[in-house]
Amino acid sequence: MKYWIHALPIVDTLRGYRRIDFAHDSVAGLVLGVVTVPQAVAYAFLAGLPAQAGLYACLAPMVIYSVLGSSRQLIVGPVAIAALMVAATVGEHAPAHSDAYLGITTILCLQVGILLWLLRLLGMGGIVNLLSHPVITGFVNAAAILIIISQLPAFTGIAIGRGDNAADRLTQLFSSIGNLDPVAVAIGVTSLAGVWLIRRYAGLAMGDRDHPISRTGPMFVAIAGTATVAILGLGVDTVGFVPAGLPAFALPPFDPLLWLDLAPAAAMIALVTYIESFSIGTTLASRERSRIDASQELVALGAANVGAAFTGAYPVAGSFSKSSVNVAAGARTPVSALVCVVVIAATLLWMTPLFANLPHATLAAIIIVAIVGIIDFSMLREQWRFCRADVFVHFLALGGVLMLGVEAGLLLAVGTAIVQLVHRSSRPHIAVVGRLGDSGHFRNVTRYDTETFPNVAAVRLDENLYFANANQVEDRLLAIMDRHEEARHLVLVCSAINFIDTTGLEMLRRLNHTLASRDIALHLSEVKGRLRDRLGSTGLPGELSGNLYVTTDEAVRELAASPAPEVEDNR
Amino acid sequence: MKYWIHALPIVDTLRGYRRIDFAHDSVAGLVLGVVTVPQAVAYAFLAGLPAQAGLYACLAPMVIYSVLGSSRQLIVGPVAIAALMVAATVGEHAPAHSDAYLGITTILCLQVGILLWLLRLLGMGGIVNLLSHPVITGFVNAAAILIIISQLPAFTGIAIGRGDNAADRLTQLFSSIGNLDPVAVAIGVTSLAGVWLIRRYAGLAMGDRDHPISRTGPMFVAIAGTATVAILGLGVDTVGFVPAGLPAFALPPFDPLLWLDLAPAAAMIALVTYIESFSIGTTLASRERSRIDASQELVALGAANVGAAFTGAYPVAGSFSKSSVNVAAGARTPVSALVCVVVIAATLLWMTPLFANLPHATLAAIIIVAIVGIIDFSMLREQWRFCRADVFVHFLALGGVLMLGVEAGLLLAVGTAIVQLVHRSSRPHIAVVGRLGDSGHFRNVTRYDTETFPNVAAVRLDENLYFANANQVEDRLLAIMDRHEEARHLVLVCSAINFIDTTGLEMLRRLNHTLASRDIALHLSEVKGRLRDRLGSTGLPGELSGNLYVTTDEAVRELAASPAPEVEDNR
Repeated sequence: MKYWIHALPIVDTLRGYRRIDFAHDSVAGLVLGVVTVPQAVAYAFLAGLPAQAGLYACLAPMVIYSVLGSSRQLIVGPVAIAALMVAATVGEHAPAHSDAYLGITTILCLQVGILLWLLRLLGMGGIVNLLSHPVITGFVNAAAILIIISQLPAFTGIAIGRGDNAADRLTQLFSSIGNLDPVAVAIGVTSLAGVWLIRRYAGLAMGDRDHPISRTGPMFVAIAGTATVAILGLGVDTVGFVPAGLPAFALPPFDPLLWLDLAPAAAMIALVTYIESFSIGTTLASRERSRIDASQELVALGAANVGAAFTGAYPVAGSFSKSSVNVAAGARTPVSALVCVVVIAATLLWMTPLFANLPHATLAAIIIVAIVGIIDFSMLREQWRFCRADVFVHFLALGGVLMLGVEAGLLLAVGTAIVQLVHRSSRPHIAVVGRLGDSGHFRNVTRYDTETFPNVAAVRLDENLYFANANQVEDRLLAIMDRHEEARHLVLVCSAINFIDTTGLEMLRRLNHTLASRDIALHLSEVKGRLRDRLGSTGLPGELSGNLYVTTDEAVRELAASPAPEVEDNR
Repeated sequence: MKYWIHALPIVDTLRGYRRIDFAHDSVAGLVLGVVTVPQAVAYAFLAGLPAQAGLYACLAPMVIYSVLGSSRQLIVGPVAIAALMVAATVGEHAPAHSDAYLGITTILCLQVGILLWLLRLLGMGGIVNLLSHPVITGFVNAAAILIIISQLPAFTGIAIGRGDNAADRLTQLFSSIGNLDPVAVAIGVTSLAGVWLIRRYAGLAMGDRDHPISRTGPMFVAIAGTATVAILGLGVDTVGFVPAGLPAFALPPFDPLLWLDLAPAAAMIALVTYIESFSIGTTLASRERSRIDASQELVALGAANVGAAFTGAYPVAGSFSKSSVNVAAGARTPVSALVCVVVIAATLLWMTPLFANLPHATLAAIIIVAIVGIIDFSMLREQWRFCRADVFVHFLALGGVLMLGVEAGLLLAVGTAIVQLVHRSSRPHIAVVGRLGDSGHFRNVTRYDTETFPNVAAVRLDENLYFANANQVEDRLLAIMDRHEEARHLVLVCSAINFIDTTGLEMLRRLNHTLASRDIALHLSEVKGRLRDRLGSTGLPGELSGNLYVTTDEAVRELAASPAPEVEDNR
């Protein structure tokens, strides 16, 4: 019984569910539905799919996540960044596979789901940590720019080709500026203004800036746009025919070559959607002082995507905008998402004819307003002072994604972050330390007024000792001993060393040998427990010309008083 | 003037050069010549080149290195591993470029030289550190196995095709075992026994196991093999015609596509030859308590390879066998290498007809004896106890090089080592610490008998705080606070933290916020000087609900005595 509650968090929610909870959840669910319908249609076009695919992505996936998800308020459904990644993948692969657009997206969904489950099974959810903060912010900024550019043709009524990258598309757009459709621009600008005004002032009018009504702009402008086009009979691009009815259950096509081709893109989409969902979930949970379960999220998000695969939808993720509306509208439990699903289903069953006259320019405006808000460069100023390498990685991710595409750009940025990591630890900080007063504490002699002893050099290595830095450390320790001509003892303070690999071990042996030939004894102090155990398994402690000391103070007290040693390399 | 001495170490050597030095150097040079001639011819065939290419590799490169090299005893010339890598590269690229074997090798030489110079100019010699001890030993073992397998056809007289990898060639060999040429085998086995017996007993007979005469076996068996074939008129494969005379100066062909194709192989050869040369040079220098200059070695080895490129040779490196003979024969300065060059030149001018009857089976035996000695698995036992990940990398390099080839195998092993590094630091060691007696020192509570206080949890993070581990650390710190229900203060002991990136900084902010919401204050202690300066450039110290303490003892003394805090997230 306990196990089932853990595996199905909704069970725990529904025990103790009260009538008043349902009242709150239904209001939130209705608001959520109103916000979701136009967004879902807009993101479907962003992904290069028909309108209904976006609505389908709000049915099975939303139900599945509300049953399995560990967050009480996270809403899973169509999101802009996943849509962008789907569009890029479909654009790349569809021509080689007889333009099987929808087949490709459902395979992507299934692969994303399976990959998330695999991460859970293999306990490898930690792999998402490779996407560091600067990589993610750079990627999100780039994705936002790409999305806005992708909406400009619909917004202006200028038809352009796909183009190789963002710059290419912008060039095409500017060179065809003469084809600007004034009607599309008028609808687009009006819609933009409408959404923005409602977001900015509707809440204030209700006495609460964050009132859920401030998020309903997209629905109002969608209705207004549709009505205008229908009544005036304007000749602009509209959504057109949307088939009525719920999606049929269908298996994604099984084509091994296509599966193989899509796997890298699916892996990238899986990582990005998981990170997006998990970080939104964490933010929501911390507001109500709860936490979410990373493993359960992998299971739930994986299942939601598998559900999307079988119902003709496209990859889904946790949505920040929908989740915020859900919270602001007073949702108490995932039941609000189920109410929203009813709204979407009703739309699909009875209201699809209304989409016929919904202009693309309005959808473009809805997307642009949603996306402008996620562009954020404000962290860069602090990063510039704190860690310039991260600013570099941010712009590498940004530029890489804009110029080379999502996958290549992300891989480039992650690879660079790893190379930086190796490079950084290959140039470790090494400090000659001295005693701070009578304290028994040892600190960097260049930073503190410390006491040192001519025949003992105590040196602290502030880094793990391993292949990338072993040679450097050896050189620098020998150079330090060259400067301390009188010193007959080198005490290597190991307080910051957590790990030594075999390259580091060989280096210590060689160093011990070299120092012995100069009549200098090598001692280690403050070796951490785990490392001491591991070193003990090798012959090193016995081979050392000097000793292992628990504290640097003990080492220096003993050695400073001792006569020059008879140094023997005990190898 | 000073600068020239530094740039041309030979100038320093020749000032103060005495007649007695020249006596020693000439003897060593003559012995070196005797050892080098058969080896050079054998390695040329190993590289898939004509015999004279091996001898040419002992002229210009050897002269250039003796003038520029910072090691007094290192001998640069043809080596087995570079020959193997050249053979692999030529085999891969020659078919696509109209079989321009020698053109390809001279381009490789030039590229290797230029790359080594580039490493020097960019100060990037440290890149060789990426090839860790286990990667190098795994690679050397694999290369030795490949080289032995490559000699089996000549040794047995069985002709086989190139084959895809080592296993494939062995299969071919065994399936054609019926074609075994008894004469070739007889010559091969006799040569093998001859070289081995001389290596084993000739030195002992002279009263010194390491007497240089023990290295002259190859010359004796080469002469004996040649004489036997000539006198008995045996029908085995022999070296055949070798053109007499010194190499002509020639430019490597300039074919941009070919240059591009060869660049990755050249980069790998450059790294491997540099590491080989540098580690041999370091070993020799440490014996006479001197050191060699890494930058000057890049310059000298680069120049030696450029010299090889213009004289029809193939990539050269520091040779362990030749350098040992040189030292054992009493060489005092690089002048011995110049004497050796005279011997090689004399051979090329007047003795090439003698090679006509030198059997390939004898050359194969010479290579096999030289190579068996470098196979070494003895370090694996200790590595298994000390660092299993390194044993894995060793076998990955070994298996990768055997199965996928030199470049792919090395890249796979280096990549894996880096992933291990990231993975390792993504699961950092975190210890709850307590005070050790009255010492003011804090140690892991599970390892030492320590004093702790119920309202303060002091936790030491034994790793840098950055993107790969920030989420993990946050989770584990919160889990620790869950276990210490009474604790109102978390003191994060930063003694082992050398670096925090922006992902880590964001995590500290989030942690501070989360803990504040539970009425727990977050304090930092023992923050290193450089890190404290960097943190100071951000708002973090002011945002913390707690304080920064110099020592953990100070923090715990103050906090243990204080009442429960009014915790405010000062953000």
